[in-house]
Amino acid sequence: MLKIIKPTLLLNEYSCRKNIQFMTDKARANNIVLRPHFKTHQSIEIGRWFREFGIDKITVSSIDMAKYFAGDGWNDITIAFPANIREAEEINELAEKINLNLLVESVETVALLSIKLKFPVNVFIKIDTDYGRTGIHYTDIELIDKVVGEIKYSDKINLSGFLTHAGHTYKALSRENVSNIHRQSIERLNLLRKKYTSEAGILIVSVGDTPGCTLEDNFEGVDEIRPGNFVFYDVMQYEKNVCASEEIAVCLACPVVAVHKKRREIITYGGAVHLSKDYLADNNNNPYFGLVVKLGDNAWSAPLKDCYVKSLSQEHGVLKMSEREIKNIKPGDLIGVLPVHSCLTANLMKEYRTPEGKIITMMR
Amino acid sequence: MLKIIKPTLLLNEYSCRKNIQFMTDKARANNIVLRPHFKTHQSIEIGRWFREFGIDKITVSSIDMAKYFAGDGWNDITIAFPANIREAEEINELAEKINLNLLVESVETVALLSIKLKFPVNVFIKIDTDYGRTGIHYTDIELIDKVVGEIKYSDKINLSGFLTHAGHTYKALSRENVSNIHRQSIERLNLLRKKYTSEAGILIVSVGDTPGCTLEDNFEGVDEIRPGNFVFYDVMQYEKNVCASEEIAVCLACPVVAVHKKRREIITYGGAVHLSKDYLADNNNNPYFGLVVKLGDNAWSAPLKDCYVKSLSQEHGVLKMSEREIKNIKPGDLIGVLPVHSCLTANLMKEYRTPEGKIITMMR
Repeated sequence: MLKIIKPTLLLNEYSCRKNIQFMTDKARANNIVLRPHFKTHQSIEIGRWFREFGIDKITVSSIDMAKYFAGDGWNDITIAFPANIREAEEINELAEKINLNLLVESVETVALLSIKLKFPVNVFIKIDTDYGRTGIHYTDIELIDKVVGEIKYSDKINLSGFLTHAGHTYKALSRENVSNIHRQSIERLNLLRKKYTSEAGILIVSVGDTPGCTLEDNFEGVDEIRPGNFVFYDVMQYEKNVCASEEIAVCLACPVVAVHKKRREIITYGGAVHLSKDYLADNNNNPYFGLVVKLGDNAWSAPLKDCYVKSLSQEHGVLKMSEREIKNIKPGDLIGVLPVHSCLTANLMKEYRTPEGKIITMMR
Repeated sequence: MLKIIKPTLLLNEYSCRKNIQFMTDKARANNIVLRPHFKTHQSIEIGRWFREFGIDKITVSSIDMAKYFAGDGWNDITIAFPANIREAEEINELAEKINLNLLVESVETVALLSIKLKFPVNVFIKIDTDYGRTGIHYTDIELIDKVVGEIKYSDKINLSGFLTHAGHTYKALSRENVSNIHRQSIERLNLLRKKYTSEAGILIVSVGDTPGCTLEDNFEGVDEIRPGNFVFYDVMQYEKNVCASEEIAVCLACPVVAVHKKRREIITYGGAVHLSKDYLADNNNNPYFGLVVKLGDNAWSAPLKDCYVKSLSQEHGVLKMSEREIKNIKPGDLIGVLPVHSCLTANLMKEYRTPEGKIITMMR
């Protein structure tokens, strides 16, 4: 085992590569493009693992992230976030160098981009297929018409197609429910594609949420998928039966600093500034912030029964332990926590370590 | 106004200095030591503002933070977190240079420290006065006896006194409730001080939560206070009537990237990786993640009525706006968000900007 003295984000390279292989195989079998979302890992080194599987197009969530990956030779990048015209200068810098794809959802943004762009970009119209976060609602044909029209006026902006993030699969209560959302989203985008192809030419349909892309096998009508979280998965996906526990590829190793045997709780060095405060609700609707595993020399165990992260302060974790597990724990031991939301945990930790001791850096 | 192109943490230096002055004045008036917790701001520059008010002793929450501030000449530092014996080497490095105060709450940790320490440290016994996070419960005299006994065996460990964090003031439902917790905590520590003074010599009573230290005026029986959040305050403190809205000294400036007039929502570039996912519950028990303000040239407004952060994704904020405020907002505008928990927001942003354009750095 590594010498771990403080909270450390362990990465199981083997599981991670298997997750990458699973999704690249699925995309290939369905003859669709996998444009993985790199906001989850934010690491050039992990990006290179994707390259080994033939990936050459990626998704990111910010201009800074696009710059970071462009610096490692990625030259076809979609920024899957409504274009922020305040960053027009940075957009131009990128658009000069790479094939840059932006998301638009308003006439105002397209008009402002038109004025400020010095180099051509592709845009997707962001469509809301009922997730309800952002994008133009798929039924708002009046607005879609206007945006398509505004794009046509610009000689710098090329319409690539329609894109959605069906994030409501995360709230789906059953596998069947995920399937329905997945199919519905695809159908809604295809209706738009059909409507606008004659005036706008070839249009791409891009979808991509980890639950849908992991669980579904029918990608008819889809050109590209953009899942991100699958590279690591996490407790959120595990609790929704999207992944098995052994497919979760990251784990926070935490020093135990106090043991409260009577109330079956231990205190870890490993808190909100390490895991993030994202949470899930248990059967009694109480929040919990991670599951607990034992750390071995080269791997970690399955989640320990009846053990979970009960609360988080800035640096403290409060872990509820089972009668069985509390017995032999003492201050100075190490314990592992599987994160509820691996994207946010990785974003906070800024670095991974493999059990073999390799350090994998991230964007800073 | 500054040229802001992406989420930027604004710091109102005037309010911040006033907050510092308020607490230093209160400590002086009560003839107690203010040992402010620097985990909130994590900034050498803001630390220097405290120095201008005569502060020379500080609290931090990790060894890394202690090293960072020791590097700027702070030489009396309490690490208000149960001592992590896995960091013994780092503890020794610090203890060689500065007056280092650690927290202990178990015989095991004291015994291991005894073996590993090469330089003297002071320790406080961390007492749980009913917050229920960590520390030895104030009624567990058997364990306190053992820890005091173990400390006596060591020639490197000096017992400084008893310390608590009465974090349950954050859950108090009324001002009276805060007062009761404050007084009770102090009394409980003083009973311990009385019990152990004859065998252990002069013992310090150290308390320190922002609600108690801000609202209370009776510090009889207290030697030092360690509040931290008061340097910025936040929506959590504001909603508990601990501070006024104009005393909140930080605000996240966010570009508006989409406007959904019908449902009165705007999308900001400013999400969970900027604000953190800490939340409060509204009157209907729905979570919210911040309050909304207008940004002026040198300041920001009071919280806008009926406007709040409804949800956060990794980079997206979804802000519910009032009928009145939604009217004139368009993509490309800037809007301000007062954070629910300023410590976690600052920790994510890693840098402040004053409206005058000064950049204030933080620990990285």
